[in-house]
Amino acid sequence: MTLRIAEIFGPTIQGEGALIGEPTVFVRTGGCDYRCSWCDSLHAVDSAYRHEWKPMTPKAVWNEVRHLSGGRPLTVSLSGGNPAIQDFAPVIALGHTEGYRFACETQGSIAKPWFADLDTLVLSPKPPSSGEAVDWDAFDACLKAAGDRPQVVLKIVVFDKTDYAWAKAASERYPGLPLYLQPGNPEVDPETPIETQDSLDRMLWLVDKVTRDRWFTPRILPQLHVLLWGNKRGV
Amino acid sequence: MTLRIAEIFGPTIQGEGALIGEPTVFVRTGGCDYRCSWCDSLHAVDSAYRHEWKPMTPKAVWNEVRHLSGGRPLTVSLSGGNPAIQDFAPVIALGHTEGYRFACETQGSIAKPWFADLDTLVLSPKPPSSGEAVDWDAFDACLKAAGDRPQVVLKIVVFDKTDYAWAKAASERYPGLPLYLQPGNPEVDPETPIETQDSLDRMLWLVDKVTRDRWFTPRILPQLHVLLWGNKRGV
Repeated sequence: MTLRIAEIFGPTIQGEGALIGEPTVFVRTGGCDYRCSWCDSLHAVDSAYRHEWKPMTPKAVWNEVRHLSGGRPLTVSLSGGNPAIQDFAPVIALGHTEGYRFACETQGSIAKPWFADLDTLVLSPKPPSSGEAVDWDAFDACLKAAGDRPQVVLKIVVFDKTDYAWAKAASERYPGLPLYLQPGNPEVDPETPIETQDSLDRMLWLVDKVTRDRWFTPRILPQLHVLLWGNKRGV
Repeated sequence: MTLRIAEIFGPTIQGEGALIGEPTVFVRTGGCDYRCSWCDSLHAVDSAYRHEWKPMTPKAVWNEVRHLSGGRPLTVSLSGGNPAIQDFAPVIALGHTEGYRFACETQGSIAKPWFADLDTLVLSPKPPSSGEAVDWDAFDACLKAAGDRPQVVLKIVVFDKTDYAWAKAASERYPGLPLYLQPGNPEVDPETPIETQDSLDRMLWLVDKVTRDRWFTPRILPQLHVLLWGNKRGV
């Protein structure tokens, strides 16, 4: 069996959500069942890039993670595209025997038994601005598949007031899940420099909205990697 | 009994460490047993500002927190100055009955029984660049006073290579405590604008150092509030 891998990179730090700041090696898979209007990882999503995705055995994926991390255990983030399209059970098993931890980031559209093996499952249902519609039955199946072992958290990107209201409703649906909000990044072209102040302004808008509403459920975090490195790949 | 309070402000988000992004009301106390060379809160430390510190009863402190948060439970951060100089047991007790959570940020030089009532205790021993020397017996007494209830975390500010090596040694002393590193902010004057790129460059330096060394214990986070608001007070 081989996995379709868009890139493996790191160690760097996680830039978003519950594990922000955590030293991480990223395994970015190729292929996605969504086409979010503002996708910032099209090179791992659009089949036009398929020729760039490398077929790798779980053992080859694992060897690359171990090589990059110098054999020192850290968090491995399975991202994409949608990593839930593929079977990561063998990679996780290899890593766990050596003390590595695994996080997976997925929209929650496809449930996999290996979710139960994870240390952290980040479910990021896509708000209206994405142009996608969430299948909540599929989402619930992801929660069920995860079971009790992983820490499960919700992460929602907020571009506008409609997304914000939607995030509130989604959060009320899952009161037991810690919620992380982050402002959206409308610049998706890796060649276009990010205006740092624009990113910060979007963050300020979201902080202002949440605090004015006295809605204290979510944590609000920026995309730290975008502030540090822009849309550059491989960091 | 009254408490010396430099300022109470919020709700805003926590800008640093384990609770980064968390909606928070800050209670900043007046008075400190340290004089860190790069202190960014001198208005709560130097007795030259003592006339600005307000004597408030625990009930008055609590009423202000409740007013600012609109009576909706959130995290209250006790900071300073060194909040451990004073007795916050009554404020914590008032807040807990209404479902609020309490975090305290202190250098770990003074232990207080009310540490055991906290939800989060952030101990931030000061590295050599501060010009202060840590009394590790006093620090251990803080850990002992906290006991099992609060989540206890280490946060260390790193200005240079010496601080970095020191942080590594401190972390080895307390392998059970989650560690957060943050780059220092050498600009302490609230009137001087912060250069965002300088802050980001210091963060990049620290990320680079940790990942090159394959030291995967700490999480590395910026001072998000400095990026968002500079050294401005009250946010």
